[in-house]
Amino acid sequence: MAHDEFSLIRQWTRRSDGQEGDGLTVGIGDDAAVYTPAPDMEVVACCDAMVETVHFLKETMHPSDIGYKAVISNISDVAAMGGVARYALVSIAVSPSWSAEMTSQIYEGIYEACESYGVRVIGGDTVSAPDALHLSVTVLGEVEKGRALRRSQAKAGQLVFVTGYVGSSAAGLHLLLEQKKTGAAFPSQYQALVDAHQRPAAQVAAGRILLASGACAALNDVSDGLASELWEIAEASGVELSIDASQIPIRQELSTYAEQIGYDPLAWAFYGGEDYQLVGTADASRIDMLAEQFAAAGIPFALIGRVESSGNGTAVSCTRAGRQMPLPKAGFNHFGRRE
Amino acid sequence: MAHDEFSLIRQWTRRSDGQEGDGLTVGIGDDAAVYTPAPDMEVVACCDAMVETVHFLKETMHPSDIGYKAVISNISDVAAMGGVARYALVSIAVSPSWSAEMTSQIYEGIYEACESYGVRVIGGDTVSAPDALHLSVTVLGEVEKGRALRRSQAKAGQLVFVTGYVGSSAAGLHLLLEQKKTGAAFPSQYQALVDAHQRPAAQVAAGRILLASGACAALNDVSDGLASELWEIAEASGVELSIDASQIPIRQELSTYAEQIGYDPLAWAFYGGEDYQLVGTADASRIDMLAEQFAAAGIPFALIGRVESSGNGTAVSCTRAGRQMPLPKAGFNHFGRRE
Repeated sequence: MAHDEFSLIRQWTRRSDGQEGDGLTVGIGDDAAVYTPAPDMEVVACCDAMVETVHFLKETMHPSDIGYKAVISNISDVAAMGGVARYALVSIAVSPSWSAEMTSQIYEGIYEACESYGVRVIGGDTVSAPDALHLSVTVLGEVEKGRALRRSQAKAGQLVFVTGYVGSSAAGLHLLLEQKKTGAAFPSQYQALVDAHQRPAAQVAAGRILLASGACAALNDVSDGLASELWEIAEASGVELSIDASQIPIRQELSTYAEQIGYDPLAWAFYGGEDYQLVGTADASRIDMLAEQFAAAGIPFALIGRVESSGNGTAVSCTRAGRQMPLPKAGFNHFGRRE
Repeated sequence: MAHDEFSLIRQWTRRSDGQEGDGLTVGIGDDAAVYTPAPDMEVVACCDAMVETVHFLKETMHPSDIGYKAVISNISDVAAMGGVARYALVSIAVSPSWSAEMTSQIYEGIYEACESYGVRVIGGDTVSAPDALHLSVTVLGEVEKGRALRRSQAKAGQLVFVTGYVGSSAAGLHLLLEQKKTGAAFPSQYQALVDAHQRPAAQVAAGRILLASGACAALNDVSDGLASELWEIAEASGVELSIDASQIPIRQELSTYAEQIGYDPLAWAFYGGEDYQLVGTADASRIDMLAEQFAAAGIPFALIGRVESSGNGTAVSCTRAGRQMPLPKAGFNHFGRRE
C-alpha cells in the first residue's frame, strides 16, 4: 500500500479500538494482525462483498449505510453459526468518483456497526478502483467448541422458525428505487422498511439463545431471501420443508405498501434479501421452551412450518390459502442482474 | 449469493480440501467456516486486494497468475510476522468481460498457491462486478503466542538484512509492459524477472527461521518496494537505518536489462514492489548464527545496512559510490497511478 493511502487509513482507524490489548497482540499497522483466541472456543470466519451498482447505488444508500451493512452481513453470518463476532478486516477499493469525505463516511458506518456489536477492526487493505466502489469485509468470531449451528442438521419432525420480519429490506429498496425514479420522497409511514434496507440488524442474541438452548438443529441467516435459505437447509440436510405462508412474519407497512402498488407481499418475503433474520429448525418438544426464552429476550420467534421426512419430492413446499405448492428455488438480486 | 453462482463456487471448490477434518469443523458451504485454533498459537489475520487495471492487466498476468499472486501476497504478510498460513477466504467480483473459463483459471491459481503452502480455502464470496475484476483474499494463520515479529522492534546497533533479490518483480512488469506495447515477446533470458512478477514466492521458511532464532527484532515483507518497507520499520521503531546500496541483492538479469534500457537497477530495487522478500533487523552478535541457518536452509540472506540510534534526521539513508544520501520515502505503484 502506498504511503498516502496508508496515512488515510491510519487517520480513519486511529479512533478505533483496533490497537493492542484485550487479546489483540498486534493491531492495525503491521503486516498482519495477531490475536489470542479465547480458550475452549473455535474460530468462526466469513467474508462478504458489496459492489456499487450490483449491491447498492449511491442514490439508495448513504456511504455510512454501505459500510454499516457490509459489516452487519458478516456479523449475521457468524450469528447464523450461533457465534459472536470479534474482529473485522476491511478491504475497500475506491474509485475517483468517491470523495475522501464519502469514503470516510463509509468507514464511519463500518465503525458504527463494529462498535454496536463489539467488533474491532484489526486490518484490511485500501486500494484504488477504476470505477465501481468495492467493499469486502471479513469477520472473525468465536463459537463454543463443537457447538456451531450448521444448516445441514434439520431432521424430520422438527419445526421451522424465523426470528423476525422478512421482506422488509426488499420492500425498502423498492421504495428507494421509486424515489430515485420519481424524485418524490417515499412516504414517511414506510420509514421502517427503508431502515430495514439501509440499517439492518444482525441477530446475534437470537443465535446465542438458539445455541445455548441445545434445541436448535439447523440454522441459516436470511441474506438471499427466505426461499433460498429454506432450500439451502433442505438440500444440506436431505429433508423436505413444508411452510405455512400465513405464519410468515410480515410488517404491516409491507402489506400496506404491497397493496398500494399491487404487489404480492410474499414475493418480497420469499425472494427479497438482506433481512438478516435467522431461519432454522428445532425439536418440536422443545419449541415452547425456546419460544419462552425468545419472549423473555424480547425477540420475535415465529413458527412457519415443519420438517418432513419425505414426501412430494419438492425440497420446499408452501401452503397458501389452503393450497400446497412447490416453493421455487431462487435467490435475490438487487437490480435485476444475476449475482 | 444467488444459486447459480453458489453452484459455480461449489464446482470450483469441490476438489479443494476446504471440507471438514484436521481442525476444520465447518468448511465451505455454510454461513461461515469454523476451525479449532492450534493450542498455544495465536491467530494471524491479513487481507490484500488486487484490482484489474490498478494491480494487473489481462496482458501482463494469466488468470491463474492473478489468483496465485493474490494468495502469495497474503501468505507473505503472515510470513512477515514469523507465522504460518493455514486458511484463506476468497472474495471475487467478476465482470462480464471475464469468461467462466478465465474465472475458473483464477481459482486454479488460488488453489495452486494454497496447495503449495499448506493453506485451505474455507470460504469467501463470489459476486458480479460491472467492469474491473476485483480479488480480495483474507489469509488466517498462526504464530507462537507472544512471538510475532513486528516492524516496530528495531534497535540501534542491529544489522539490516533482506532474504533475497529485490526489484525483480518490477523489472518483470517492465518487460511485460514493453511486450504489450511493442507486440514482441520479451527476450527469454529475462524469464526469471517475469516469473518473479507473475509467480512470486512467499518467504515462510525464512520467517520461521527468523522467529525460531530469537535473534530477529523487526520484520516486514517487501510488498511496496524496499524503500517503503525500510521507512516503515524506521518510523515504527523510532530509529534510523543506513543502507549500503552495494550490498542489496540484485539479479544479474536485472542489471543486464537495466543497462540495456538505460535504467537505474536500484530504482527497481528500492521502488519496485511485490518482491515478497523479508526485510528486517537482527542483533549484530547473532548475525553469523542466522547466516549459517539461512545457508543451511539454502535461503539467501544479505546484510544491507545497520540501525543507527540517531543521526542525520533522516529515517532511511543510503550510501552509494561513497556518498550517503537520504532515501526518499515512496511506495510502488504499478501503472503510474497512486494506490
